[in-house]
Amino acid sequence: MSTQLTPEHFAALAQQAVEVPSWAYGNSGTRFKVFGTPGTPRNPFEKIADAAQVHRYTGLAPAVAIHIPWDRVDDYAALRAHAEDLGVTLGTVNSNAFQDDDYKFGSLTHADDAIRQKAIDHHLECIDIMDATGSRDLKIWLADGTNYPGQADMRARQDRLHDSLQRIYDRLTGEQRLVLEYKFFEPAFYHTDVPDWGTSYAQVSALGERALVCLDTGHHAPGTNIEFIVMQLLRLGKLGSFDFNSRFYADDDLIVGAADPFQLFRILVEVVRGGALNNPDVSFMLDQCHNIEDKIPGQIRSVLNVQEMTARALLLDRAALEAAQAAHDVLGANAVYMDAFYTDVRPALAEWRESRGLPADPMSAYAASGYQQRIAAERVGGAQASWGA
Amino acid sequence: MSTQLTPEHFAALAQQAVEVPSWAYGNSGTRFKVFGTPGTPRNPFEKIADAAQVHRYTGLAPAVAIHIPWDRVDDYAALRAHAEDLGVTLGTVNSNAFQDDDYKFGSLTHADDAIRQKAIDHHLECIDIMDATGSRDLKIWLADGTNYPGQADMRARQDRLHDSLQRIYDRLTGEQRLVLEYKFFEPAFYHTDVPDWGTSYAQVSALGERALVCLDTGHHAPGTNIEFIVMQLLRLGKLGSFDFNSRFYADDDLIVGAADPFQLFRILVEVVRGGALNNPDVSFMLDQCHNIEDKIPGQIRSVLNVQEMTARALLLDRAALEAAQAAHDVLGANAVYMDAFYTDVRPALAEWRESRGLPADPMSAYAASGYQQRIAAERVGGAQASWGA
Amino acid sequence: MSTQLTPEHFAALAQQAVEVPSWAYGNSGTRFKVFGTPGTPRNPFEKIADAAQVHRYTGLAPAVAIHIPWDRVDDYAALRAHAEDLGVTLGTVNSNAFQDDDYKFGSLTHADDAIRQKAIDHHLECIDIMDATGSRDLKIWLADGTNYPGQADMRARQDRLHDSLQRIYDRLTGEQRLVLEYKFFEPAFYHTDVPDWGTSYAQVSALGERALVCLDTGHHAPGTNIEFIVMQLLRLGKLGSFDFNSRFYADDDLIVGAADPFQLFRILVEVVRGGALNNPDVSFMLDQCHNIEDKIPGQIRSVLNVQEMTARALLLDRAALEAAQAAHDVLGANAVYMDAFYTDVRPALAEWRESRGLPADPMSAYAASGYQQRIAAERVGGAQASWGA
Amino acid sequence: MSTQLTPEHFAALAQQAVEVPSWAYGNSGTRFKVFGTPGTPRNPFEKIADAAQVHRYTGLAPAVAIHIPWDRVDDYAALRAHAEDLGVTLGTVNSNAFQDDDYKFGSLTHADDAIRQKAIDHHLECIDIMDATGSRDLKIWLADGTNYPGQADMRARQDRLHDSLQRIYDRLTGEQRLVLEYKFFEPAFYHTDVPDWGTSYAQVSALGERALVCLDTGHHAPGTNIEFIVMQLLRLGKLGSFDFNSRFYADDDLIVGAADPFQLFRILVEVVRGGALNNPDVSFMLDQCHNIEDKIPGQIRSVLNVQEMTARALLLDRAALEAAQAAHDVLGANAVYMDAFYTDVRPALAEWRESRGLPADPMSAYAASGYQQRIAAERVGGAQASWGA
Repeated sequence: MSTQLTPEHFAALAQQAVEVPSWAYGNSGTRFKVFGTPGTPRNPFEKIADAAQVHRYTGLAPAVAIHIPWDRVDDYAALRAHAEDLGVTLGTVNSNAFQDDDYKFGSLTHADDAIRQKAIDHHLECIDIMDATGSRDLKIWLADGTNYPGQADMRARQDRLHDSLQRIYDRLTGEQRLVLEYKFFEPAFYHTDVPDWGTSYAQVSALGERALVCLDTGHHAPGTNIEFIVMQLLRLGKLGSFDFNSRFYADDDLIVGAADPFQLFRILVEVVRGGALNNPDVSFMLDQCHNIEDKIPGQIRSVLNVQEMTARALLLDRAALEAAQAAHDVLGANAVYMDAFYTDVRPALAEWRESRGLPADPMSAYAASGYQQRIAAERVGGAQASWGA
Repeated sequence: MSTQLTPEHFAALAQQAVEVPSWAYGNSGTRFKVFGTPGTPRNPFEKIADAAQVHRYTGLAPAVAIHIPWDRVDDYAALRAHAEDLGVTLGTVNSNAFQDDDYKFGSLTHADDAIRQKAIDHHLECIDIMDATGSRDLKIWLADGTNYPGQADMRARQDRLHDSLQRIYDRLTGEQRLVLEYKFFEPAFYHTDVPDWGTSYAQVSALGERALVCLDTGHHAPGTNIEFIVMQLLRLGKLGSFDFNSRFYADDDLIVGAADPFQLFRILVEVVRGGALNNPDVSFMLDQCHNIEDKIPGQIRSVLNVQEMTARALLLDRAALEAAQAAHDVLGANAVYMDAFYTDVRPALAEWRESRGLPADPMSAYAASGYQQRIAAERVGGAQASWGA
Repeated sequence: MSTQLTPEHFAALAQQAVEVPSWAYGNSGTRFKVFGTPGTPRNPFEKIADAAQVHRYTGLAPAVAIHIPWDRVDDYAALRAHAEDLGVTLGTVNSNAFQDDDYKFGSLTHADDAIRQKAIDHHLECIDIMDATGSRDLKIWLADGTNYPGQADMRARQDRLHDSLQRIYDRLTGEQRLVLEYKFFEPAFYHTDVPDWGTSYAQVSALGERALVCLDTGHHAPGTNIEFIVMQLLRLGKLGSFDFNSRFYADDDLIVGAADPFQLFRILVEVVRGGALNNPDVSFMLDQCHNIEDKIPGQIRSVLNVQEMTARALLLDRAALEAAQAAHDVLGANAVYMDAFYTDVRPALAEWRESRGLPADPMSAYAASGYQQRIAAERVGGAQASWGA
Repeated sequence: MSTQLTPEHFAALAQQAVEVPSWAYGNSGTRFKVFGTPGTPRNPFEKIADAAQVHRYTGLAPAVAIHIPWDRVDDYAALRAHAEDLGVTLGTVNSNAFQDDDYKFGSLTHADDAIRQKAIDHHLECIDIMDATGSRDLKIWLADGTNYPGQADMRARQDRLHDSLQRIYDRLTGEQRLVLEYKFFEPAFYHTDVPDWGTSYAQVSALGERALVCLDTGHHAPGTNIEFIVMQLLRLGKLGSFDFNSRFYADDDLIVGAADPFQLFRILVEVVRGGALNNPDVSFMLDQCHNIEDKIPGQIRSVLNVQEMTARALLLDRAALEAAQAAHDVLGANAVYMDAFYTDVRPALAEWRESRGLPADPMSAYAASGYQQRIAAERVGGAQASWGA
């Protein structure tokens, strides 16, 4: 019953790239506690060095997303050269308009024009950085929202959001793009200004062609059929990027595929179905927190999870599926679908990795490398990077 | 602290109308059991007679939505005359493409062109009926979806949905409109073809100006901020109508305001804020099931709940709210907001009703009327109306 | 990395039994529509004949649960003999106190003593039937609850529930047991009298040793960690039985493992961990609805899903897991855990089935048998069995 | 229709006390940002001074819960005297076993006996402090849990939890009690060791009579009927205390009554129904975070919300309710219930406050007092208290 990966599948897998977030290598936690770990980077250069390890052992992570101001440096050309020396590039630039005291009541939606302008200016600075780093995408996730009914006028905020985004969008040049991420809730608890794909879609549609939606797999209401949204945004031509992670409850930011591997499979099936695999218009990124597990192997595990599940999605026998669907054979169609999911692609992928000069088992190769021990020994003193850094 | 209803408020309330659904007067239930009640209507004429009672005691429900085929009659002119004799009109026409065996695997999205055409034709018939009844709105709620991953190609269904809707939309004439309702889940359990406002918005936007979204307050994922969607759809000019009801868990279809009165308040605040109160472009309707309670008083209670909560929404002191919002006085703004909610508008509304020749307490006036006893005695024999009818 | 099924594993799998529900072979649906299918049984004898097919092709389903009154017959000895002739036995007896008009406002919790006595008597009748069929377990799922706050006194209902259950429990003899199922919501929408495991646990603990909890995998709030409850109930010695199925949203009653296969794996890992596999004190049952798919193959698929996932749970390398856990190696422990899940046990199970005289692929063997066509041809006329029957 | 507060009601309200948490006066936030505010306390003495303001203006908050180590001082007798000088007492002692690096993988459930002993010892220290402060209750909320399936053995942790709790419980003397709080999720994302009331109930039942459950209103799965749990725990004699707050999504820790005032009403109706109002065995406490609003008025608003909603619960006409319930008059019973909720008790409470020498409007009295400006001016320098302090 079970099928095998073909050369065409491997060709598709060989092109796959998953951007890793610089902040995943720093400490993170919950409102209750941020636990530190030996070896945690103290600056953007060390973060990129760690990120490069992920690419080294997997061949899957050629780009590193950065976050401003967490990754602010004096010389972005030097940061870019540092990355390139390590075999990776700088990817998406992520803005941050939620950690300044001025943003307590909003940023791009703020009622006070001076604060709103400050938030817009921050995004313009991010575009300047994109110019320096050669990054294509500006990713905007807003913490904007309110905690209590009546606290603010949601509609006026939506209109100001449009105005702010338009002014940022107008600053983009060449191939640059703006991707707007939506999130169900947190840190705001009553209303969030960009809470769902519909809002993100409506806002980016009002901007222009180079404005797109970013879908974070952890940012939906309980029970949401995420692959449906993937399908719909691809159909509408507005899916710009993925932030992969997984969740049991809220925005848990766990390792992609850890909480519900079958959901990840279904998402990747729609990615393939919708022509988004190896499509430069749709970026694959991670956005995760390794609160208690080791960060570099946590990232290695994550990109491997995406790769393995993509392989399963590729295995899906579309001809058999379509035949069963056409016959309204519910059980037959589901069986074809599940067959791809249940097939163990790991041995074939291990062999293929070796054939490409990569370790068959990137996790143990990294563990055996001694890198973790080395950074733990060397990175003594200084402040470990974290969200607050 | 608390405020009072003014003549302007009463003028607004006097114009308010809530359309009632003919099917609420028939029996309904769950998949486990449909309980019958003495006096339940046996045909559309009796349903409209019951609906007219709601208007008689409240002055709030001048129109009755009908559902085809449940309300199919030989002579719609006669049904219309019957309604008008009783002081009400026929309102929105609701289609039904979920109770024919052919629709087991879809209707407007069906892969088989013959079945899809049948579903389209059903909607064209509904428009014919609208021509006869003088109804403005065709409301489409689709049960279409699948139960198992892989069962169908979601994207192809979405494309077929567009094609079907376009062919229906093109048949509309004059002031007629199409409103497309979305629903999170049920009766399909894996995917639903119109599951969220974003999908409904994308689909109706592709049709034209007279295609709009219908927001049923019970059709969202747990925790969804519904008033945000109300705000957004009004901002986008695409909110066509409300289906009011309330819920604790899924699409419970309980009496509007029963499960979360504060949520109803917040929704109506956005209705007022967004200019949708007494705006002919936005219809207010009920869509409820009175599984265990008496149906006519259940409907009276419902329209009163909408009226009372609208009165509270009108009481909101917008100047004070805006001042507190501008000062970022979170507690102050919330206090202004809650003050309107906690004000007891019932005595003032009772007085005002009497001044208009309506009973102060419509519930007890109806109970005292003997109507319920009369229909229980008279409606003997025949098959009670229900969803299956 | 991946492991193999051993003779010990196969020995455990050989003992595994999953009771199938007679009602799964009849029609079911939602409140919107019940679709019929050719060949659907018209009476309990035909249901059992269909159930026996599941056992015939899988060797996994030696017992059939019955439901009173849906499976009421004049002569239970004849029904038992019929089952035994077909190679199966009659299993759990399920009561039904939700389809009589008297139960509109409750059954074992009803405020009216006469109606409550009627519900108690129904359960005593079920125990009489157990005496005749040789069934061990009386399973009680109650639809009791309310739709509106204030409708009833929840506490008094809880006290009456205790009294009713005590009177039923006292009637049990010998090895007979009472298992009390809990359910989050539906058909009641405001409160349910046995909504969670805590309530079921408190109620059965007050009865005695032979009263236990039934855990239906679809009866929890969104996001509930079900395997935790399995662990806890096993730890407390109070898990009597499982009702397996799967769900995306509410109590969807889909095929077990279909919605979240990884959750099923986690549950079965706790089953093995807690000593519940092949433990006569813990029954495995299905409780599903095949609304749109064929019923017999739907059941075959279901018991196979349980078997396959049990095989994966058995594969879990507990020594390696414990070592990683002891080292607080989060990623290492999770890797051991996921390795078992991702291993493809299907080829080994197919071989093993053949070695036992069963078809390697029960689904295609059943399809090839012609049984479905035969019953479709033969079962003409009469009323198809359904929940209403 | 609406009813009035009677002298008996006021007598009950006069006895009502709501304990306030010292940590609510310090800064709090989300994982994204903790915003500071001028005037925030720098030490436990200042926190208690702020808490005393709440009692001063409301007469409702005579006790202040403390949290160890956040409120660790050298001399608890001095802290107690300070509190008493300000007219309040020290209340519940809250332990903290989640902010030490040792607790990364658990505390009372930890697999390592040395760390587990450390956590036990921390609780014994808390009991020592209770001896010094005269506090009755030790409240235990555990952050213990795991983020990834397989990370730990849930059952062994449960057994160790029992052992740890037993050793803490055995140290209690006299009237001292242990209350165990449960929480659905956060900060652990896969499993939480005390996730639901059933687990807390099973654990405290195994300890003895002076071990009870603490119900935090924000710690449940979406859609949970919390008043049912209140009813059940009161029925079982195991409800020790409430942590009041409100939520839209997760454990938002918003002002009690802010998110769903009707839910608070329903809870308080069950409190009254179950004899828990003014019952010394059941403590009322707040547990909230004022992330963006002013803290002292946030607390004043909160205790007033509890008071106002208690007044509405007292207004419930139980005779009328019981009559409607007995007649199975669903709409009638709900109308009696809603009548109490919709009655505006605020004017009568304002009058009553004045009659007792309290301000009619505690919020504006506090605002007018100048206290907030005074502390903002005086509390300059030092580290503002927060969860990390």
